[in-house]
Amino acid sequence: MNYFIAVDIGGTQIRAACYPEDKQSPKTIKRISTQGSDSTPLERLIHLLESIWPEGNVAGVGVAAPGPLDPFQGIVIEAPNIPGWVNMPLQHHLEEQFNTPVALGNDANLAALGEWKYGAGRGFHHLIYITVSTGIGGGVIIDDRLLLGERGLAAELGHVTILPDGPICSCGQPGHVEAMASGPALARWAQQEIQNGSPSILPVGKDVTAKDIGEAAKQGDQVAIAALARSGYYLGLALANYCQIFNPSAIIIGGGVSQTGHFLFGPLKTALSEHVMSSDYMKNLTISTAALGDDVGLMGALALAQSIK
Amino acid sequence: MNYFIAVDIGGTQIRAACYPEDKQSPKTIKRISTQGSDSTPLERLIHLLESIWPEGNVAGVGVAAPGPLDPFQGIVIEAPNIPGWVNMPLQHHLEEQFNTPVALGNDANLAALGEWKYGAGRGFHHLIYITVSTGIGGGVIIDDRLLLGERGLAAELGHVTILPDGPICSCGQPGHVEAMASGPALARWAQQEIQNGSPSILPVGKDVTAKDIGEAAKQGDQVAIAALARSGYYLGLALANYCQIFNPSAIIIGGGVSQTGHFLFGPLKTALSEHVMSSDYMKNLTISTAALGDDVGLMGALALAQSIK
Repeated sequence: MNYFIAVDIGGTQIRAACYPEDKQSPKTIKRISTQGSDSTPLERLIHLLESIWPEGNVAGVGVAAPGPLDPFQGIVIEAPNIPGWVNMPLQHHLEEQFNTPVALGNDANLAALGEWKYGAGRGFHHLIYITVSTGIGGGVIIDDRLLLGERGLAAELGHVTILPDGPICSCGQPGHVEAMASGPALARWAQQEIQNGSPSILPVGKDVTAKDIGEAAKQGDQVAIAALARSGYYLGLALANYCQIFNPSAIIIGGGVSQTGHFLFGPLKTALSEHVMSSDYMKNLTISTAALGDDVGLMGALALAQSIK
Repeated sequence: MNYFIAVDIGGTQIRAACYPEDKQSPKTIKRISTQGSDSTPLERLIHLLESIWPEGNVAGVGVAAPGPLDPFQGIVIEAPNIPGWVNMPLQHHLEEQFNTPVALGNDANLAALGEWKYGAGRGFHHLIYITVSTGIGGGVIIDDRLLLGERGLAAELGHVTILPDGPICSCGQPGHVEAMASGPALARWAQQEIQNGSPSILPVGKDVTAKDIGEAAKQGDQVAIAALARSGYYLGLALANYCQIFNPSAIIIGGGVSQTGHFLFGPLKTALSEHVMSSDYMKNLTISTAALGDDVGLMGALALAQSIK
């Protein structure tokens, strides 16, 4: 029997699953901590793969990894939360170890691929996926193909300047949409409003998550509602830009912040439809939340493994 | 012998040329005014094509047309400067008249295709073309294919919000890069500076072109120099966004404003390199002016005609 193996590497944990050919539910699935005192992340990853490796033939291994990476050469350029992974030739290491073709993809790109093949994007030929959580990442499907660009660094949909004199983004540039609309941006803005005297049930000076803000909004908290509306506005503005750039038939929004429901999506959709230059961009445009939840990385890695030729 | 016919339709004139197969220089080339008192633009176009139609077989006709259009159905949705061309099924009309396959493309998209196949973009697989004149248009080549999107409305690279509270664009939206950096935006800003008391050799209250501003800049005019630097800055900022979105290997800049040389390109390149989130985007990135000049529409239409299957 033929199998595919999918791996989703994060800074905290690594998940791996083995799928029988043409099946979307795994035969085996396991997770481990990415870091441990007795072994390197690469050793831990190899050990994890050995533990789920099936009898029979593995036709391909797909790996979703964080940070900028080179999907053509299979090199992790820098994984911010994994010490030592700088210019790490992960594809080479795994192919040598397992003697099986391996492909590597950026986690947000593969999430787009996963949603397109198995999730909310099924049947669409042109889609934009954007994940809004601690950061904002993206992936784009054009004519049923993943947009990678010359060196695999395309589709950084969170890193476009939308307000040149806005706050500084995690990447160091000013006014990126990530700096305006991500989870931390939400929390920062809410804290500032509270410090400026706006009444709120949100705790002051503490780390507040998008989930906290979403729950406060449900209870009618005006600061929380305004914070989500502000994020929604900037996301909508960015998505109007992306409609004019890509003319997609579907926009899929994932990540923790997307779980805050209509407090985010209402203002987002309003800003989007008010800012497209022609209503033609809205015709037959589907806007939805991601469908695959925590499995999106694995499903994307599976789709990648299946595409290895 | 086989031939291809290329047509470039503008609000003022229509150009058409007949190319022997595998040749880039035309056997025949003609131009007429788009509008006349005795015939409609469509009748004039048909007459023009009849006048250059060769003996032998025409394998395809490629047509570059302005304004939003549907390249899949060959319909001009709206050509702003051609009265009556609203939802005009141009492909259908021409195919019926000439019994030959016809394809239609947006002029900026086809300029990108022309530069990629015959101009400054030869040999690049991922390129961004941007034309800066009265408006700002764009075209994108990804993996040697033109980006069209679901309905052919993609690559509107002049119509992205870059300053939400900036001036209103010709399309009605605020702060688009077209409203910040096009020829009219240049002139508007310069006039304002002069009215605010800045000394300048530019005439006051008159229509000033990008060419006038470029010449004044050469003579050391500080308002002209600052106006071009401002346009260059916003173009550079937008191009940094596009690098993160498309990760191209070439950026080609055409249109009248691009003829102002280093007064524009200096600040543009500075803003671009300062605003990309990682220097990886600048590695092996070629930035150049368009090579095909006034022939870009015809050469793009030729490339389109050659791609008809």
